[in-house]
Amino acid sequence: MKIPYLNLTIDKDEKSDLISEISNLMSKGRFVGGDEITSYEKALEKYLNTKNILGVASGNSSLYLALKTLNLKKDDEVIIPNISWVATAHAVEIAGGTCVFADVNDDLTIDCSSVERLVTDKTKAIICVHFMGIPCDIEKLVQISQKKNLKLIEDCSQAFGLKYGEKAVGTFGDFGCYSTNCMKILAGLGDSGFLISRNELDHKRIKPWLYNGVDENKQVVDIELCHRIDTIQAAILKFRLSKVDFIISQRKSNALKIIKETNNNKIAFIDSRERVYYGLTLMINEDRARLIDHLNKYDIEVKVEHEPCLSDLTPYKSHKSEFENAAKLSKSIVNIPISEALSTENIDHIIQSINSWNP
Amino acid sequence: MKIPYLNLTIDKDEKSDLISEISNLMSKGRFVGGDEITSYEKALEKYLNTKNILGVASGNSSLYLALKTLNLKKDDEVIIPNISWVATAHAVEIAGGTCVFADVNDDLTIDCSSVERLVTDKTKAIICVHFMGIPCDIEKLVQISQKKNLKLIEDCSQAFGLKYGEKAVGTFGDFGCYSTNCMKILAGLGDSGFLISRNELDHKRIKPWLYNGVDENKQVVDIELCHRIDTIQAAILKFRLSKVDFIISQRKSNALKIIKETNNNKIAFIDSRERVYYGLTLMINEDRARLIDHLNKYDIEVKVEHEPCLSDLTPYKSHKSEFENAAKLSKSIVNIPISEALSTENIDHIIQSINSWNP
Repeated sequence: MKIPYLNLTIDKDEKSDLISEISNLMSKGRFVGGDEITSYEKALEKYLNTKNILGVASGNSSLYLALKTLNLKKDDEVIIPNISWVATAHAVEIAGGTCVFADVNDDLTIDCSSVERLVTDKTKAIICVHFMGIPCDIEKLVQISQKKNLKLIEDCSQAFGLKYGEKAVGTFGDFGCYSTNCMKILAGLGDSGFLISRNELDHKRIKPWLYNGVDENKQVVDIELCHRIDTIQAAILKFRLSKVDFIISQRKSNALKIIKETNNNKIAFIDSRERVYYGLTLMINEDRARLIDHLNKYDIEVKVEHEPCLSDLTPYKSHKSEFENAAKLSKSIVNIPISEALSTENIDHIIQSINSWNP
Repeated sequence: MKIPYLNLTIDKDEKSDLISEISNLMSKGRFVGGDEITSYEKALEKYLNTKNILGVASGNSSLYLALKTLNLKKDDEVIIPNISWVATAHAVEIAGGTCVFADVNDDLTIDCSSVERLVTDKTKAIICVHFMGIPCDIEKLVQISQKKNLKLIEDCSQAFGLKYGEKAVGTFGDFGCYSTNCMKILAGLGDSGFLISRNELDHKRIKPWLYNGVDENKQVVDIELCHRIDTIQAAILKFRLSKVDFIISQRKSNALKIIKETNNNKIAFIDSRERVYYGLTLMINEDRARLIDHLNKYDIEVKVEHEPCLSDLTPYKSHKSEFENAAKLSKSIVNIPISEALSTENIDHIIQSINSWNP
């Protein structure tokens, strides 16, 4: 009984539905652009109760396009959390700016007091990451960004379906950036993402950047590469959007069962009252390597997300950073499987394997 | 009988084959990375008789990644033809450099004497475009680039299957950049492309740039966004590669029939002995708008590729350029349908419609 961290295999029923979507597009000969993309964007807007959504080629593209609106120069700084997938940092640099790494809280979200210490005259924006589906302190971040006149960008790649109060994440800041690649809660069959602009002017300005700076009148108005979403991905994602609530609730139920039934005092979970479960992170202060070996021996695949922290990566070693908590946490965390595809037996096996660990 | 410029509808037989490829990937749960991509790259290398091919997210990505190896600064110039799809220019600017526009020959390929006049101490590279499937004077371009110590990049997006002598285009310069989006001779079901590096060191350096600067040992070694090809696209393209010779020969046969049987002395064709037919361009010195109306009235969809020339586009108006022939040609050209999907009746109708035009 091998339990993979994530199993992307598509079962027979869903396969038949997805192939029917693809088959329709083949009959139409529609693979770039088209009503299918607009219709997917509208469905997302309805689900997230917001406006100004654009489907894009990847979560990377989503972050990059949001940052491009800031016209960053090399000296311009963007504060990001010191634990995130590296794309958050890369997007800042490829958009022309420099990232500065803030420390993280015990729940791996960006530490607002660290952000406040790092803000300088050079700071142009903050990117917060709703890491593993746990919300940042978005109210405080909105307050800081307003007070300091900074743009606020929410990286929601791991937080599809997460609300903060009544509102979806990604609708608090100036931009909400989502990845919908095949590993995500809302997942296409390859790379894709979407971008929420709070401001309609930004939304309109970004549109031509999806395809070589060409506007709706087919005029070349700006300089940019290709960041559009494939029509097939949009059609698949629109279909899967109608099923995503099941995924969200199934992962939650798996995670809550594991948290509840685990009784190993060497292990704690990183959790939050209101959240979605992109992943479930456990914390172990010592012996992480041996815990991983133990779980692997019990056929459970696990993942460390992420070590080292960003400011320790080769391209970012000389960047300004705070890292005390991030450095400590990155050595203590392990993600365990919670996918909606797991059986009750799988979940029980995970619980037993954690409980049986006695270093 | 409406004759579209390009009809991407997939017929029943091919649909069944393509869906079987996609269905396999769904069963495997494989949508990013994987052997399918390597196997597609190997099949391309065999077909093109070359090495160091990487599947990428788009033709844009292919050009951009080749240019990224040059570490361009704002003052660095890259000479490109003044007629091309605008992505050729954008890739230079997004990679950090400045494009300079060379005039084109009567066959719309880059004019080598214009290139020689435009080379300065600031010039770092030349991008030639095998436009509409017509080869550039690649021998002369290799000579110029060697003499002046410039990199030579071949934009082969419109020239899949084209050889110059015994060698595939894209294998003469330092890089060969191909688009394989759904409109191309070798066409995926969305956006994709591939990149040939002559130099293995470039090939290895570029690899991590496909996915966030992450190398084969999962180390973050560099800063870049996501430029990888979707696994589904790679599988589809590998399948279609086995059928591409038919497309190439069918388009050729359609184009040659049109050229042979057209007898309207107001109209000339832009052609070349050795070429592939991404498009067939006709030239009319006056009355182009009325010719287009005439063909549209006869239910033939046509395309002007491209007007205006690049140096007349808003983002490039202040760039250094030569344009005498490009400006004249861009006002005189029209592309007519030649797709492999057209019937003999379609082709005859196109010929009759051109012949019946009498301004």
